Amino acid sequence: MTGTPEATRAAAALPPVHVVGTGLIGTSIGLALTSAGARVTLADQSETSAALARDLGAGSLDAPAEPGLVVVATPPDVAPRQVLAALHQHPGAVVTDVASVKQAILRDLVRSGEDIGRYLGSHPMAGRERSGAISARADLFEGRAWVLCPHEATTDAAVAAVAELARATGAAVSTLSPAEHDAAVAAVSHVPQVAASLVAARLEPLADEALGLAGQGLRDVTRIAASDPGLWTQILAGNAPAVARLLREVAVDLTGLVEALEALGADADDVADAPGARAVLARAVAAGNAGHARIPGKHGAAPTSYEIVRVVVDDQPGQLARLLADIGEAGINLEELRLDHGLGLPFGVAEVSVLPAAAGPLGEALTALGWQLHG
Amino acid sequence: MTGTPEATRAAAALPPVHVVGTGLIGTSIGLALTSAGARVTLADQSETSAALARDLGAGSLDAPAEPGLVVVATPPDVAPRQVLAALHQHPGAVVTDVASVKQAILRDLVRSGEDIGRYLGSHPMAGRERSGAISARADLFEGRAWVLCPHEATTDAAVAAVAELARATGAAVSTLSPAEHDAAVAAVSHVPQVAASLVAARLEPLADEALGLAGQGLRDVTRIAASDPGLWTQILAGNAPAVARLLREVAVDLTGLVEALEALGADADDVADAPGARAVLARAVAAGNAGHARIPGKHGAAPTSYEIVRVVVDDQPGQLARLLADIGEAGINLEELRLDHGLGLPFGVAEVSVLPAAAGPLGEALTALGWQLHG
Repeated sequence: MTGTPEATRAAAALPPVHVVGTGLIGTSIGLALTSAGARVTLADQSETSAALARDLGAGSLDAPAEPGLVVVATPPDVAPRQVLAALHQHPGAVVTDVASVKQAILRDLVRSGEDIGRYLGSHPMAGRERSGAISARADLFEGRAWVLCPHEATTDAAVAAVAELARATGAAVSTLSPAEHDAAVAAVSHVPQVAASLVAARLEPLADEALGLAGQGLRDVTRIAASDPGLWTQILAGNAPAVARLLREVAVDLTGLVEALEALGADADDVADAPGARAVLARAVAAGNAGHARIPGKHGAAPTSYEIVRVVVDDQPGQLARLLADIGEAGINLEELRLDHGLGLPFGVAEVSVLPAAAGPLGEALTALGWQLHG
Repeated sequence: MTGTPEATRAAAALPPVHVVGTGLIGTSIGLALTSAGARVTLADQSETSAALARDLGAGSLDAPAEPGLVVVATPPDVAPRQVLAALHQHPGAVVTDVASVKQAILRDLVRSGEDIGRYLGSHPMAGRERSGAISARADLFEGRAWVLCPHEATTDAAVAAVAELARATGAAVSTLSPAEHDAAVAAVSHVPQVAASLVAARLEPLADEALGLAGQGLRDVTRIAASDPGLWTQILAGNAPAVARLLREVAVDLTGLVEALEALGADADDVADAPGARAVLARAVAAGNAGHARIPGKHGAAPTSYEIVRVVVDDQPGQLARLLADIGEAGINLEELRLDHGLGLPFGVAEVSVLPAAAGPLGEALTALGWQLHG
């Protein structure tokens, strides 16, 4: 529960921090900062929640004498009011909020007519399925992005202070405008969620036999469709304009595909026809290729293509461990591992992703050790 | 390269099999049957391809004297003609084709006016990224579903013969009508592919900083968006009516969501408003929950919820092997393993899925062995 050396350095440079709101995120921030050595005070409209956060070690409940930094970690609908209150009560402090939408909050603050030069919104890209102080973790932000969203009037000193805060929790700092932030999370998080839900919804009326044909592709596309409807209603509604804009684009593409497929279906007797319709299909898949290629690889590095070595693994404890021990002894760094359980068979296939240059040597090493390569 | 005991038993019961078309699938069928002990003859309009399949061990090029079973493994557009030719040339044989669409081929055969009682279409749910005899594998069908699609006039003997064929390759037999088959693959394979492509296409214009916020959810939803446009144009066009029908449903849901989000966006000043729009969002996510819950778990068994234990793993060869060895020694059967590489940090988080009852004991065992649990 101790921070990394960089987090500890960042925490040492922090002024006293006051956290408003001791739910999952606020308490986790308190825990992370406290364990990195910063001084933290806590407040919450629920005294029980605040006391729990204190007892967990997230900070003290003393009135903050002179905080240099106030973190508003409340639900988005009360965040603007809490930010304004903090700017008034602590005239020397930088103020940030950590809600998952940024434009709506900033708009409310600008409308207030107050000087908000000491404010910038921010967003740590971390969360859990559970909520409340009791679910908080000191390491919730480690290795995650924490997006800073300064506006036109934000001072450089305010940006620097919130960046130091983020680093003190172990997070990696990114900077985006509020509009860029909302558009980015719409594209990388909210639209994928909607797509997963809509694809999964098509499965409900299928016969068991049809579902028996499900493979790894379907499982991957729909994994996040298991998410909580209440939570996601809040998230989607909070970023409604940006999500609507992208989903409108998806709908346009989708309508073009449906029309092309219907033209091809009506023309089924002669599959050589409707070349224009086929071009629509090919362009849609190619556009997906281009977008997919832009997703960063491991450690935020440039995207890397891995080669996959498939190995038959008995479905018993210890088998996979033996495989990975053999891979490790071959001196090969595993990038990703995925298990594909065969339908009705007592073995699975381990898909081992490695750098392309390592695939050949790995295959040879594993074959020599008696592993059966697959496909 | 030897079949399972069940495959060998099934192969022993097979009459001589004649395979028409020595591409990836036809040659793999020949290899699987030959290695299980069946007698196989091969034909292809390309003599080079047929000779290669023979040299690989998929069967002989002798004229088939009296095949009991003919497998048409050609592209879909020539499959009906080849099926009719086989029914004529081998009046005692059962005939099947293995194309990935079933209704269009059956329609052509029915229109021919011939007696097709000895024919049924079928579809082994297996493939590779590469094509041709050179990419064939004897184990391509092991543990995969092989769908039988009998029509009204198909004889019981024909169904039994093709089921035996499928089992002799190591596949698991399912039975669906041609329409059910086309609808099933549309839902479990073709629609997810389109959704992944459309979501990934939204990433193309994003700034690098925005893409830096990408998490595991996005990676899962878009993994298959890297697929080949040429291949997928053929697949989608071949199942155009069924895919169009489902995508039309997706488009209706999507339009409802866009309208709800636009209503919420227009109403951003008072997020308590538009309760009807919020209900639309919640219903869409809940429908996704219901569909996702129907995906079968491991080994085709009823869906199981696994619990995830998250463990910090140094990003070095051998670390993961040590973790899995420890899990195996704790006597706990790993269901799934997923690696989540932290952004910019030299460690990853291994997400270990186990049966719920095993999660507590596993966490204790790993902590006792010095592993750091995460989140």
